[in-house]
Amino acid sequence: MKKTHLFAPGPTPVPPEALLSMALPILHHRTPEYEALFAEVREGLKGLFQTAEEVLLFAASGTGGMEAAVVNILSPGDRALVIRGGKFGERWGEICQAYGIDGVPVDVPYGKAVNPALVAAALERDPQVAAVFSTHSETSTGVLHDIEAIARIVRKTPALLVVDAITSLGVMDLPVDAWGLDVVVAGSQKALMLPPGLTLVGVSRKAWAAVERARLPRYYFDFAAERTHLLKNQSRFTPAISLVVGLQQTLRMIRTEGLANIVRRHARLAAAMRAGVTALGLELFAERPSPAVTAVHVPKGIDGGAIVKTLRAKHGVIIAGGQGSLKGKIFRLATMGYADASDVVVALSALELTLAELGYPVKIGEGIRAAQEVLAQ
Amino acid sequence: MKKTHLFAPGPTPVPPEALLSMALPILHHRTPEYEALFAEVREGLKGLFQTAEEVLLFAASGTGGMEAAVVNILSPGDRALVIRGGKFGERWGEICQAYGIDGVPVDVPYGKAVNPALVAAALERDPQVAAVFSTHSETSTGVLHDIEAIARIVRKTPALLVVDAITSLGVMDLPVDAWGLDVVVAGSQKALMLPPGLTLVGVSRKAWAAVERARLPRYYFDFAAERTHLLKNQSRFTPAISLVVGLQQTLRMIRTEGLANIVRRHARLAAAMRAGVTALGLELFAERPSPAVTAVHVPKGIDGGAIVKTLRAKHGVIIAGGQGSLKGKIFRLATMGYADASDVVVALSALELTLAELGYPVKIGEGIRAAQEVLAQ
Repeated sequence: MKKTHLFAPGPTPVPPEALLSMALPILHHRTPEYEALFAEVREGLKGLFQTAEEVLLFAASGTGGMEAAVVNILSPGDRALVIRGGKFGERWGEICQAYGIDGVPVDVPYGKAVNPALVAAALERDPQVAAVFSTHSETSTGVLHDIEAIARIVRKTPALLVVDAITSLGVMDLPVDAWGLDVVVAGSQKALMLPPGLTLVGVSRKAWAAVERARLPRYYFDFAAERTHLLKNQSRFTPAISLVVGLQQTLRMIRTEGLANIVRRHARLAAAMRAGVTALGLELFAERPSPAVTAVHVPKGIDGGAIVKTLRAKHGVIIAGGQGSLKGKIFRLATMGYADASDVVVALSALELTLAELGYPVKIGEGIRAAQEVLAQ
Repeated sequence: MKKTHLFAPGPTPVPPEALLSMALPILHHRTPEYEALFAEVREGLKGLFQTAEEVLLFAASGTGGMEAAVVNILSPGDRALVIRGGKFGERWGEICQAYGIDGVPVDVPYGKAVNPALVAAALERDPQVAAVFSTHSETSTGVLHDIEAIARIVRKTPALLVVDAITSLGVMDLPVDAWGLDVVVAGSQKALMLPPGLTLVGVSRKAWAAVERARLPRYYFDFAAERTHLLKNQSRFTPAISLVVGLQQTLRMIRTEGLANIVRRHARLAAAMRAGVTALGLELFAERPSPAVTAVHVPKGIDGGAIVKTLRAKHGVIIAGGQGSLKGKIFRLATMGYADASDVVVALSALELTLAELGYPVKIGEGIRAAQEVLAQ
């Protein structure tokens, strides 16, 4: 007997309520039943995004939502700032390049958060910048960028602020309207507690004005065409029906727990996880750690790949290693979405045992004890 | 007590085996377990597409797969033939237009199949045509186009033949390699018996050569980048994991039944459905009817919308009405994927009762009896 425990930064565990709702016979989407369900989902998403505007849904992974953001607000040859400090920040640059956008990088070393003053300076130097592409929680490094501070700068300019909130929405506070975020991209497989395959995109009024002018080619990911159907509780193309059905369930769970409580829970679990790994003598990778995912330096002399593999093969615990140039150098533990204190304990226990097996000097139980102290507060 | 029966041309019923497999705890995709599953899925898809080439998967609805076909094989300003005879043929034209492709229409009246000689003549007139976009089973009209004959013409030219097989793959014989089809797009929610959200794209060697030259912008739907990951039993971005898990189950069901038997079953059910509706004095809309969906003229004096609504509200039977200019003029009944003889009987029974309720002179039982006679053969 070996149970599987998922601590990767996506996909995250799906609660049984959602799994079972998706196992019911499939609904047809051109029916009053689906339209009533979708009306509820639209309202739930507005609450989650803390916006009065509609949130668009596309059958795609989060990267599809990112591409949608680029092609709906820009025209060929436009210039944009791209905040890069990890794989997902870099992805904005790759999408811009694919579409002929002049993506001026604002580079940050891996593990560091961007200094908002750099963004302010870049925008002052170049008032032609049409958009700033940023990551809220950079999943590849575990860093949380200060989107509130960046938004304070960008919203005073004509530029749009586009935020990859794929691992932040529903994890931390992200009041889209209050902060003045223009395009906010989320994915189903993170704090929304669903399988991957659905991306959600919030669009501000300022962004809608840009959509009208934007001339990059688009069809499947067309914001304006999609919105026309959404306002009738429909989608332009066949939606990812089962995921929307599951979303109704997880949005109900989110409403029942309450967004403020959810944010506190994620902060508490991440604090406990950080306390646990540091008590084992390990070092955090992120200077400004995200509550979505805890990135940890692989200790000297230990094989980073072996940590991930041993956790999975011997303990049924799925975590993520480092990506790209961070491969073998860090590992990442997430408690996102459907997670509680018991998960932190399970993850740390398996980590302690794994490190001991790999020859790292670990005092068994010390990580868990430090985490419990945080959880007891 | 009222059971729901789904006879729309997508989404189609999902078998319990697939529903339950998707209700298991979510797999992480960067694990050996997922890679083994995906290796099996890749082989199953090659069998279903009857191709030696890889079949690419994207988290998207079928339209996403159609857009992927356009942007991966063409360059700005390229010319293409677009066979149009319904909403889905027209969609090829819309995608071409969105991307600056000169889409020369080959128009066919709704309800008719394209004459392959028209395609031959158009290609002879214009040897610069880079691609021919076609629909196999035109879901909006119930027409089956003769893709085999069209392929015989196109494969002698440098042009690529791109086929929307969304409601044909797994319904009728479609030997991709033997016929020489270049890009073949399918969707999960038809004969593949899954929820919507996954599109599958077969790509021939001739098409791969075009992919290298094609300069239309693309990122999320990039064939070459996706293939690199697929060859390692991975996907470039987070895949629609639950749908891939379900696909393993439905591909096993398809292999067990056997493609030839599946094709025969669909032909038999559609023949029974056609016999049933014509025995009620109704007229088929399609000159060359597809076994995927039976399109029927709304009889004079009857409200087409009321047929769809009464079937749903009183009998729990979901069918599709006409789309666009065909709204109110036809209705459409599908027995696609997870369907057997009992479904034809249920659909025809509900149709007979509905027509009688709406004042159409129907001899109760005559439609079913005619269908049974076909089923008995």
